[in-house]
Amino acid sequence: MSLLTVGSVAFDAIETPFGKTDKIVGGAGTFIALSASNFVKDQRIVSVVGEDFPQETLDILSSKGVALDGLQIKKGEKTFFWSGRYHNDMNSRDTLVTELNVLENFDPIIPESYQGADYLMLGNLAPAVQRQVIERLNTRPKLIAMDTMNFWMDIAMDDLKQTLGMVDVLIINDEEARQLSGEYALVKAAKVIRAMGPKTLIIKKGEHGALLFHGENIFFAPALPLEEVFDPTGAGDTFAGGFIGYLAATDDISFDNMKRAIIAGSALASFCVEKFGTQRLLEISRADIDARIEEFVHLTNFEMTTVIG
Amino acid sequence: MSLLTVGSVAFDAIETPFGKTDKIVGGAGTFIALSASNFVKDQRIVSVVGEDFPQETLDILSSKGVALDGLQIKKGEKTFFWSGRYHNDMNSRDTLVTELNVLENFDPIIPESYQGADYLMLGNLAPAVQRQVIERLNTRPKLIAMDTMNFWMDIAMDDLKQTLGMVDVLIINDEEARQLSGEYALVKAAKVIRAMGPKTLIIKKGEHGALLFHGENIFFAPALPLEEVFDPTGAGDTFAGGFIGYLAATDDISFDNMKRAIIAGSALASFCVEKFGTQRLLEISRADIDARIEEFVHLTNFEMTTVIG
Repeated sequence: MSLLTVGSVAFDAIETPFGKTDKIVGGAGTFIALSASNFVKDQRIVSVVGEDFPQETLDILSSKGVALDGLQIKKGEKTFFWSGRYHNDMNSRDTLVTELNVLENFDPIIPESYQGADYLMLGNLAPAVQRQVIERLNTRPKLIAMDTMNFWMDIAMDDLKQTLGMVDVLIINDEEARQLSGEYALVKAAKVIRAMGPKTLIIKKGEHGALLFHGENIFFAPALPLEEVFDPTGAGDTFAGGFIGYLAATDDISFDNMKRAIIAGSALASFCVEKFGTQRLLEISRADIDARIEEFVHLTNFEMTTVIG
Repeated sequence: MSLLTVGSVAFDAIETPFGKTDKIVGGAGTFIALSASNFVKDQRIVSVVGEDFPQETLDILSSKGVALDGLQIKKGEKTFFWSGRYHNDMNSRDTLVTELNVLENFDPIIPESYQGADYLMLGNLAPAVQRQVIERLNTRPKLIAMDTMNFWMDIAMDDLKQTLGMVDVLIINDEEARQLSGEYALVKAAKVIRAMGPKTLIIKKGEHGALLFHGENIFFAPALPLEEVFDPTGAGDTFAGGFIGYLAATDDISFDNMKRAIIAGSALASFCVEKFGTQRLLEISRADIDARIEEFVHLTNFEMTTVIG
């Protein structure tokens, strides 16, 4: 099945306790598309970059089956740029620079060739832009998933709630879930958020794994215990891309398959953090991913067979 | 198989955002013994209380198969008392009062009838006292597990290291693992700590579950996502009691069985936090525990069967 991905294609400059980068390629759309391309072969991206964006990255996306007809290249303009510095524990970061550039007036134009996409992943963007994408599709995709962040809860909560009412799956982190719901306990937060629209909710807890709320069911996926997190940038988007890519490739949105999709997303995220930016995602093979998924099976598998007492 | 449990039998006074208690029965030894008694029928406890300790609680322990020959009752003295107040997030707490009383000069006498115990659980106590217990056993138990806390790392690190060199399993929380090892990443911390002695290490992460390090293997057990944590006091000891009780009852210290034992311990801990003190542990039946264990199976179970790509 086909996947339509909407999200920023951008530059990042990153400082971690392990080192720093100049401007490197990043952006939610980039991480989602690269991650999903490991599973789904028919992918389309809607985004915008400036004239300064490297053709090499566009060629890589093309080579991975990502159609670029909806990737606008704005002559004489600059690509979205974010710069941040991670703290020693890698769990928090400071934003040093945000230059919206081409994203400031982003009009998400959907090429005719993109119509009829089966799955839609809305990366973190202004909720009004996310909604525009949904409204511009002639047929509703089989499944719409979206990401968002605290920033939009602070400045565009009404917009956000409107968009939440139109999607099937929301993927956010624990802090965002608490802010969105006003509840501390994640089980309570999930109830409040799912009443806003999304039937399925995934709460990412970073190194503590992720929770999937779907129907009456809860599934918990751990994160792989890692010796070192080199650079967390893009890990959440990589997770989302692996999740939606797996669903689109298998075309099965049952709870059981969503569990597999979360494990697939977690495996890809565990690679993402091993090097700066998209570097590690460009190196790994399908065999690497399968081996990593096998590690998740070993990490969590148990059988309560013994009867005692 | 038989289990020897060593740990405080005490009074607690607890304040949480949900309410407060007067002096109620608590103590690591109490929680461990009550929890383990759900699995192991031949249990012995070494501890000390004052004259003020209620006979009713001793009768309950007896009725659950816990031998009390090694529970010293000090005439004219008072039972160990701890009082604390939990913060709103329930993840941190302030100690309001600590009265050591009978624990100050605790001499852990092992009755002759206790010799030959197959499994030993050393609840959090001064490391020198924990070591004394091991040294006073005529035959080494098949498995020795221990708990400890930051306090002993601060004031008795040499003692602690000596005791760590004598045990098989250490059960501590993530913060304690970081302090003990000087490493932030838990995978690294585990390496450092296991080099100190314990071949098996369990790191408890509260609401984020627990990690088991054993041989070359890592197992991750989630905590049950709860709507409300009413009182976390004793949850860690209840977890440890369920773990060691399950191992002793099944007499199987393989990695696979340790995984089951951790699930059993997690299930019991999830009950413990539902009411103040030991209250909930005294209400539950074996059927309740089995149903809770089944919830853990549903929470984490997945099968990566679909082949795609």
